[in-house]
Amino acid sequence: MTRKVTILGATGSIGQNTIDLIRRNLDAYDVVALTGASNIAQLARDAIDLKADIAITAHDDLLDDLRDALAGSGVQAAAGSAAIDEAAARPADWIMSAIVGAAGLSPGYAALKQGTTLALANKESLVCAGQLMLDTAAQHGTRMLPVDSEHSAIFQALIGEEISAVERIIITASGGAFRDWPLEKLETATLAQASSHPNWDMGQRITIDSASMFNKAMEVIETREYFKVRPDQIEVLVHPQSMIHALVGFVDGALMAHVGPPDMRHAIGFALHHPARAALPVERLDLAAIGSFEFRAPDEIRWPALRLARETMAAGGMNGAVFNAAKETALDGFIAGALKFTQMSQIVEDTLSQMQRDCSLIRDTMSLDNVTQVDHLAREAAKAAITKRAG
Amino acid sequence: MTRKVTILGATGSIGQNTIDLIRRNLDAYDVVALTGASNIAQLARDAIDLKADIAITAHDDLLDDLRDALAGSGVQAAAGSAAIDEAAARPADWIMSAIVGAAGLSPGYAALKQGTTLALANKESLVCAGQLMLDTAAQHGTRMLPVDSEHSAIFQALIGEEISAVERIIITASGGAFRDWPLEKLETATLAQASSHPNWDMGQRITIDSASMFNKAMEVIETREYFKVRPDQIEVLVHPQSMIHALVGFVDGALMAHVGPPDMRHAIGFALHHPARAALPVERLDLAAIGSFEFRAPDEIRWPALRLARETMAAGGMNGAVFNAAKETALDGFIAGALKFTQMSQIVEDTLSQMQRDCSLIRDTMSLDNVTQVDHLAREAAKAAITKRAG
Repeated sequence: MTRKVTILGATGSIGQNTIDLIRRNLDAYDVVALTGASNIAQLARDAIDLKADIAITAHDDLLDDLRDALAGSGVQAAAGSAAIDEAAARPADWIMSAIVGAAGLSPGYAALKQGTTLALANKESLVCAGQLMLDTAAQHGTRMLPVDSEHSAIFQALIGEEISAVERIIITASGGAFRDWPLEKLETATLAQASSHPNWDMGQRITIDSASMFNKAMEVIETREYFKVRPDQIEVLVHPQSMIHALVGFVDGALMAHVGPPDMRHAIGFALHHPARAALPVERLDLAAIGSFEFRAPDEIRWPALRLARETMAAGGMNGAVFNAAKETALDGFIAGALKFTQMSQIVEDTLSQMQRDCSLIRDTMSLDNVTQVDHLAREAAKAAITKRAG
Repeated sequence: MTRKVTILGATGSIGQNTIDLIRRNLDAYDVVALTGASNIAQLARDAIDLKADIAITAHDDLLDDLRDALAGSGVQAAAGSAAIDEAAARPADWIMSAIVGAAGLSPGYAALKQGTTLALANKESLVCAGQLMLDTAAQHGTRMLPVDSEHSAIFQALIGEEISAVERIIITASGGAFRDWPLEKLETATLAQASSHPNWDMGQRITIDSASMFNKAMEVIETREYFKVRPDQIEVLVHPQSMIHALVGFVDGALMAHVGPPDMRHAIGFALHHPARAALPVERLDLAAIGSFEFRAPDEIRWPALRLARETMAAGGMNGAVFNAAKETALDGFIAGALKFTQMSQIVEDTLSQMQRDCSLIRDTMSLDNVTQVDHLAREAAKAAITKRAG
């Protein structure tokens, strides 16, 4: 009895870790589709190894390269966002949504309509369109499982528990590259400095988002959307060791914590095998050898992203899509050298203010089209804000 | 709809904390029986306040005092171990078994036959007669809930999980009063020094058992009995803050940890309200203010009790009853000034060896009578060992 699986975003960090787990027990899986972006060699190699039906690159102009790489393998090739949406809709029992950024929203949404299981690593799906995703999953009987370490941790702490007994949810943050920097030095942070994470080996964008806490801010909003708790029930705790991933506090004072090594294969494997727990090749923690776990309150002057997340949740509507679009655009600006590290949060704040003032669409019905349009408008607004701030 | 409750061992630390919780919502409970030992004033006061049907002292010669203290209240008085067993068998929906020591075994066993719920704080029941307790509970359809912080923590981490997915169980130990003492100084530890616990406010005997780790050794055996894991799956971790009470490690590498303040009312309240989680008056932890959790491997030279627990589990049969009886007798010897602190573990080791050599009864069928007889024989053997060592 093999399970049909599809991996959206197969060449990224989450996708590669997913493939690592599947490869260890390949007979149990029938790989339907793998999608990627510009890393054609990796995409083709994995598609051939895993005997996928089809491989799809997001870039139309790379279709010929992909065809060449797959020549003679029997694996089909396709390109473009429509082809990715089509791949997401191909019948599968388990679909990993691991495309980074707002580009992951549409294929994740398509996969949700299958009525099977969607493992959701794409943060933007919940931040931009949480209610739409949950409603669609419910409507089609799809199980949507969180793959972020923190949300998988919360999910696991809630196994067998009533959400009504939850008092608070604490998600931890390593603090990223600049946790211990003097505040006044943050302005001078370079791209190379922001791209180096103390604990996790991840892509560049998410590593920078860790340093700015925009990654954690996204996770706060995701927590709100997925678990349907009030914003004031969500706390962030700086925990430099990244071993407690989250704690759920109940009305009886118990905190159930999920502890494990910083290895994404745990959360991925948990989603892959849910509701069973199956053996996974992750390190077993030796707490005595580790010696201590440290905790600190998050400093909102150092990390304004956390305050902005709370303001975004309070504003409601499609402000999550604005938050995400502004954050992605500001990150582009920082990577391109148009913004200082500390200016990213200013751009997000400017964009949120402007969109709330000028764009009534953000309070309209949440649909994929409307979210896409808000995303587009917010990116324009953020670009304008960058020009203004940087100029 | 009131619940009928009985508290066996009402005047001790667990009993008083149970009464504290019941008193906060007294209308919800109909108190059947309270039992105590020599603290007649407390027993009578609580029985009157809680409008118990009956109060029982373990000491026959205190019956008149108890009668006097209850005069005119309408609360019945009784005395002696048979009366306590009878009280335990009075119909109740929820019975707290919190008598300290082997004396708690018989009334707990009587309560198990009711087919309702037994909250088990008496460690000796599981250490001396684990299989008998579990079989009796199963036979009568009684739910037996652990009340030790560590076992309540494990129980909570296992909610909604399969025991077959458990890889290891880690129970934490504060390390007690002598955690940081130089090893060579342990021999000189006085009764007053051993009776002072860094974190928990408990009775004298259990505080000394914390310093020697005999308390943790008992909990290791309890864990083995209650959760039916292999002895090699149980680890002890020194954690001076006593805030993580236990962690359960699963085959997928996840560790689910239970975190909370050192306040017995959590574990008691959890058992009182199970399977719901109800609001409890325990402190909410502020991890950032706490700052850090430390962990160390337990040192088996400092704490030979842990090695003796493993040897006891490996030996099987009724060696648990021997272990407990020898430990209680050695503790009496230390309190009486007949033994040095470090000699307690030697007495337990001597007694285990001698009973395994000379007493075939420990490999006989586990019954209440046989356990009681093994307990008696082991106490005699331990006393002889004390005379020999001390003499």
